[in-house]
Amino acid sequence: MVRVTVWGENVHERTEEAVRTLYPDGMHGAIAAGLTELSGDRVRVRTATLDEPEHGLTDAVLGETDVLTWWGHAAHEDVADAVVDRVHDAVLGGMGLLALHSAHYSKIFRRLLGTSCSLRWRNDGERELVWTVDPAHPIAAGVPHPIVIDAQEMYGEHFDIPEPDELVFISSFTGGEVFRGGCCFTRGAGRIFYFSPGDQEYPVYCHPDVRRVLANAALWASPVAPERGAALASEQSPRDWFAR
Amino acid sequence: MVRVTVWGENVHERTEEAVRTLYPDGMHGAIAAGLTELSGDRVRVRTATLDEPEHGLTDAVLGETDVLTWWGHAAHEDVADAVVDRVHDAVLGGMGLLALHSAHYSKIFRRLLGTSCSLRWRNDGERELVWTVDPAHPIAAGVPHPIVIDAQEMYGEHFDIPEPDELVFISSFTGGEVFRGGCCFTRGAGRIFYFSPGDQEYPVYCHPDVRRVLANAALWASPVAPERGAALASEQSPRDWFAR
Amino acid sequence: MVRVTVWGENVHERTEEAVRTLYPDGMHGAIAAGLTELSGDRVRVRTATLDEPEHGLTDAVLGETDVLTWWGHAAHEDVADAVVDRVHDAVLGGMGLLALHSAHYSKIFRRLLGTSCSLRWRNDGERELVWTVDPAHPIAAGVPHPIVIDAQEMYGEHFDIPEPDELVFISSFTGGEVFRGGCCFTRGAGRIFYFSPGDQEYPVYCHPDVRRVLANAALWASPVAPERGAALASEQSPRDWFAR
Amino acid sequence: MVRVTVWGENVHERTEEAVRTLYPDGMHGAIAAGLTELSGDRVRVRTATLDEPEHGLTDAVLGETDVLTWWGHAAHEDVADAVVDRVHDAVLGGMGLLALHSAHYSKIFRRLLGTSCSLRWRNDGERELVWTVDPAHPIAAGVPHPIVIDAQEMYGEHFDIPEPDELVFISSFTGGEVFRGGCCFTRGAGRIFYFSPGDQEYPVYCHPDVRRVLANAALWASPVAPERGAALASEQSPRDWFAR
Repeated sequence: MVRVTVWGENVHERTEEAVRTLYPDGMHGAIAAGLTELSGDRVRVRTATLDEPEHGLTDAVLGETDVLTWWGHAAHEDVADAVVDRVHDAVLGGMGLLALHSAHYSKIFRRLLGTSCSLRWRNDGERELVWTVDPAHPIAAGVPHPIVIDAQEMYGEHFDIPEPDELVFISSFTGGEVFRGGCCFTRGAGRIFYFSPGDQEYPVYCHPDVRRVLANAALWASPVAPERGAALASEQSPRDWFAR
Repeated sequence: MVRVTVWGENVHERTEEAVRTLYPDGMHGAIAAGLTELSGDRVRVRTATLDEPEHGLTDAVLGETDVLTWWGHAAHEDVADAVVDRVHDAVLGGMGLLALHSAHYSKIFRRLLGTSCSLRWRNDGERELVWTVDPAHPIAAGVPHPIVIDAQEMYGEHFDIPEPDELVFISSFTGGEVFRGGCCFTRGAGRIFYFSPGDQEYPVYCHPDVRRVLANAALWASPVAPERGAALASEQSPRDWFAR
Repeated sequence: MVRVTVWGENVHERTEEAVRTLYPDGMHGAIAAGLTELSGDRVRVRTATLDEPEHGLTDAVLGETDVLTWWGHAAHEDVADAVVDRVHDAVLGGMGLLALHSAHYSKIFRRLLGTSCSLRWRNDGERELVWTVDPAHPIAAGVPHPIVIDAQEMYGEHFDIPEPDELVFISSFTGGEVFRGGCCFTRGAGRIFYFSPGDQEYPVYCHPDVRRVLANAALWASPVAPERGAALASEQSPRDWFAR
Repeated sequence: MVRVTVWGENVHERTEEAVRTLYPDGMHGAIAAGLTELSGDRVRVRTATLDEPEHGLTDAVLGETDVLTWWGHAAHEDVADAVVDRVHDAVLGGMGLLALHSAHYSKIFRRLLGTSCSLRWRNDGERELVWTVDPAHPIAAGVPHPIVIDAQEMYGEHFDIPEPDELVFISSFTGGEVFRGGCCFTRGAGRIFYFSPGDQEYPVYCHPDVRRVLANAALWASPVAPERGAALASEQSPRDWFAR
């Protein structure tokens, strides 16, 4: 049982009629529904949003979260630094993180990766093709090659991230750009997956293949061993401390 | 249910009294017992040895094998090239492979990696410490830091392998040498794990922590999706072949 | 001074009028001219072809070669295994290798990488865009983003190679496919760069940006230290062999 | 000509007689002398210290710096955040960074890597052996295998860093611990090398092999192309912006 918290900025859905029509329950609602639809009893999903106290990400909530998904865009700067610190600590301690689309510019993603995370972009409703380059990866299981998304915002290289620990998907767009849109990183004891499809103007999170990727990723990112975080503790160690 | 075939060269056990005493059922028998002991119903384990027809690795056997473990040392050159070809194809098609100790010089390991796989060595019964450098990796789950093996053959750098896709363990020895002794590679759709402890003169495969590593590795190396191999097929592709 | 040997299969140029028109001095001649044009006194370039004795790759030639470039397509199977063995040894010992376009299926490339190296393909004269994903890499220095090649054969994923040690370029094609077309590998003490543009039906090796990539790659792949190969020797090592 | 700025915290040297005796010109002085000794005209070296205005790292200084070396320990928290921001920007823009020994806990190193960078430690004057695991790497050129450092502080795993882009050296210590002590990272357009030997209580920066590593690393980390930083700019990009 993987406990997933789906975090949504929930700004576009409240302020733009077109987005509300696509996502009547919010983008977080659609993401949560997809996880439950595909993984059933293997996950327990809750949601949290920016406007809740502490953005819905209290110590108690994070303590009960194996994997956190993050979608933000218009209000990155409104996320409190104290919450970012808390999420950062949780990831290093073993919590998984799925950073979605415009979350490339979120405080937490940039904090974890250490680079600018800048990219090229154009919102012109282009076809996005998502190609699998690591067919042995669990996140690619059951995913067609390529995924065809009829209309999406273009995200293009150069994407200023560290070299991914595992590169799973590369996207192309009608205009010819390419993008490393499915990337795995391990930071501390936590597993991070960035997945680029998902602009708010298109129903990407209702796409069955995108839902499959996110369901796979939630299982992949869940901690493999509860004791992992402790193994990372720094300490002064006397000679032969490990002797039995 | 992961179907594991434990392959053993089974030469030292038949020709050396000391090894037979350590491993009355063969090294393959001890490895198989450890997998069954720790993974129970999650695995179904069989064994195969060099002296069987086709070394016990017929098309039928490989077709029913999710993960193959390989221990060889004295008789690498006696392994038929046709069997090596068959195992190579199976790994690229998705079968997992655990290459153990002196299997670093086996035909199949060198074929898959493309390098000489040479290393330094000294058989002097030194203490080996196995340190986890990737605590978030499933193969390291439940493994103490470090594993203490009281007596083992020294394997030391430089180990002439490609850079591992994931480096999980690094060993040190009494004499001061270090060794990248726990390495993951993906080749085709197959996952490969090399684990260095396991000289025939010491009861390494009875060590509970070594058994834990192998049990974790067998689950990690099992194919995540049966269709993976097919995704690798090379073919001429007309324009828009992927359109729905 | 980097000593480069440009190896060409030299079959299409001799048997097809259209190719001969594009490459009157052979594809190897064009590649060699590009290296000399851009690197001047920093390189000394010679050529060798399949129809020469030992394919022009004698021990003496390899002994004077820092970097070998390889283009083959129609006659991969005609390359003698003894020459492949020799080139394999040379690469592991420190010689650089640039594998070009259809060399993905050459014996030497598959031997070094251990996988099938299969890919999707379509020869339809599509525009290829070559995007830099590692702008800090020396092979990308002075290369526009993207390189625009007006007409080329499509090579598409999945490309069945090990995960590259460094991924420098990703290509897209008019039809929407993507390809990891600029990949670095280290094997033994040798550096390998695979670069996909270069079908014989298009004047790709006259393209100034392609020439820039190859010139950069030749310098990058040259051995950094003559003693490197020796460090890889396997040997039995007594305790404290390294003490001064 | 690589312009190197050697930054030193310069606290232990001023407050502890034993350290001053080892390093009468400061640790930064010894590091600078080693670079000049080994690289001669290929480098131009200057130093800067914590107690200078803006810690000696003004915009003007960074603008004339190709590679910055960083040693700090007692006063990490005294480094102004504005200077850390400035160095961070410079690295992403292409400046190389050599992070030395206890700089693993510096603000700039943790900012760039995103993890805790914690480790095990024990200051007991143990012998450190530095083993090369990537003999083809330019930083390892001319370096003995292993480097023998008679007395050093122990740094041991787990070292909480992202998986290095290139792992060059692994250390072992008398007590049996191991440490990934020579690690390369690329962040933005900048190259980073972490090298662990160098506690202030031992004359490590006078050791000829350590000096060789640092001299190699300074050349390796220098920007390969002045235009690299610009390639990383994020921008909205109209369709066909790249067409000639």
